[in-house]
Amino acid sequence: MSKHTILTIGRQVGSGGREIGRRLAEQMGIPFYDKELIAQAAKKSGFSQEIFEEADEKAANSLLYSLVMGVYSATGSLRVTGDEPLVEQLFRVQSEVIREVADQGPCIIVGRCADYVLRNRADCASVFIHADMEFRCRRAVEQYGFSEYKIRERLQKEDKRRASYYNFYSGKEWGKAREYDITLSSSKIGIDNAVLLLEQYLKLR
Amino acid sequence: MSKHTILTIGRQVGSGGREIGRRLAEQMGIPFYDKELIAQAAKKSGFSQEIFEEADEKAANSLLYSLVMGVYSATGSLRVTGDEPLVEQLFRVQSEVIREVADQGPCIIVGRCADYVLRNRADCASVFIHADMEFRCRRAVEQYGFSEYKIRERLQKEDKRRASYYNFYSGKEWGKAREYDITLSSSKIGIDNAVLLLEQYLKLR
Repeated sequence: MSKHTILTIGRQVGSGGREIGRRLAEQMGIPFYDKELIAQAAKKSGFSQEIFEEADEKAANSLLYSLVMGVYSATGSLRVTGDEPLVEQLFRVQSEVIREVADQGPCIIVGRCADYVLRNRADCASVFIHADMEFRCRRAVEQYGFSEYKIRERLQKEDKRRASYYNFYSGKEWGKAREYDITLSSSKIGIDNAVLLLEQYLKLR
Repeated sequence: MSKHTILTIGRQVGSGGREIGRRLAEQMGIPFYDKELIAQAAKKSGFSQEIFEEADEKAANSLLYSLVMGVYSATGSLRVTGDEPLVEQLFRVQSEVIREVADQGPCIIVGRCADYVLRNRADCASVFIHADMEFRCRRAVEQYGFSEYKIRERLQKEDKRRASYYNFYSGKEWGKAREYDITLSSSKIGIDNAVLLLEQYLKLR
């Protein structure tokens, strides 16, 4: 196994990016972080885990978008500690956890701007997974139980939310090739082959 | 060898995308098209090769940008046949050649919106190669003999030109991950490893 074994994954919803990460981590025998990250952050920060879970769920609707864009923080109504808005506290705590788990050894981390948080580590590789709309809709319905009602619009809305979050915190551009070490269309190569290719990629680096 | 052996390569100037394509084609024993494409197009179109070479050189400065943006074609001053501006004739002829060489069998084609031209072929894979600015400057100076004077600005200008050309003809977004089947940073993985990984990619598809 090469020294380059920290992999961050950004992904379009329904592209299978999370599953690719989970399977690759299993195959390589290294930890995989997603919701676990939130749980760790909750414990270390002194916030109750419920608050983190609530904030994480809210990320799925437009409230977080407003928070990120500073609408709430400008009024100060949601500030909880000094001058730092809640959502920025969450980001800071999550970033600390990301840095800690990366220090502990090889791992795979999905979402949460981990590529940006770990940008100064030479041993960290970043991937972005996307897929065509038909593939994503099918996966969202079959794997995550989404209803078919306005499914395209909902996926597009989620893309926008992820892009806003990522662009706001990283100052980079979500889904732009040059922001990532490698990007893949999972609908073109398939989930299984994406896992194989990324394993090859990590070996080659 | 899999059936998917037509590969199109888009790339930032100085990223080594052309060299990666040439080496991969050599290794796979299949044709590689770049300037050759222009020569073939020239013969078939009835234009002299000089006109094509001239147009190709002009693509390096802002004239083509103006042409593509319709400034010249709007005045009609550079129209040569009926209502079709010269630059669009060139694009059409080049696209025909791209389709012909793709029909003939496995090959690798660099630049010229080949991914867009061949978008309806399921046996065609598209890659985009990029690299960090330091790597690109070094390659441009060492491999292509660029002077170091304002090298960053010149590379950025060339990126803009390629993006304008690609976006105009394809209606897509140059360098955006979702427009390509796979993208790679050559400065992160290296030229040799990029060739190996792309060969793996084509085998897996």
